[in-house]
Amino acid sequence: MSQISRTPDAPYYAVIFTSRRTDTDPEGYEKTARRMEELAAQQPGFLGLESARNMDGPGVTVSYWESLEAIRMWKVQVEHLAAQERGKSTWYQAYAVRIAKVERAYGTEI
Amino acid sequence: MSQISRTPDAPYYAVIFTSRRTDTDPEGYEKTARRMEELAAQQPGFLGLESARNMDGPGVTVSYWESLEAIRMWKVQVEHLAAQERGKSTWYQAYAVRIAKVERAYGTEI
Repeated sequence: MSQISRTPDAPYYAVIFTSRRTDTDPEGYEKTARRMEELAAQQPGFLGLESARNMDGPGVTVSYWESLEAIRMWKVQVEHLAAQERGKSTWYQAYAVRIAKVERAYGTEI
Repeated sequence: MSQISRTPDAPYYAVIFTSRRTDTDPEGYEKTARRMEELAAQQPGFLGLESARNMDGPGVTVSYWESLEAIRMWKVQVEHLAAQERGKSTWYQAYAVRIAKVERAYGTEI
């Protein structure tokens, strides 16, 4: 289960992934989502991941990375590429990916 | 209910707000969360908001803004300030706020 990420001082990068699910293949989706979280955490430059999904609304997953290069490498990781294809063909009605540079952060665990 | 936001071409800004709730005052929290979404949408420079919360995990809310100035004005909006105080004293065990510049975006609804 994802928690609030403890990230280093800014700047670093965030990938904001928002999606609306289809009703198709919930078990496959859940299994792959968990696997992708594990796999992302093993990538070079990974800093953390925060994810939530409403029962009836969108899912929002934010992953944090040291650099744009780390994000590019994660995007083309072989198993992740297969999951992205499956997402587009089967699991997502709609999705958005935003790449952002975190400039400032504060809170209780940062 | 929040959906995937249709945002303009980058660059623009994102506020990534992640939180872990206490068990306290769920009705007050829900009511205020909905009110803050309405109020944010009326602020100058607001571009969109995406939000999700797991039953047993963190909540992730991302709001999008035209400029850092728009984010500053929202942060000090009077009713929002009161909600932030209530959040810190009552609703949140832990939270993180990250201010990020969206540099690139793609997807089915962007």
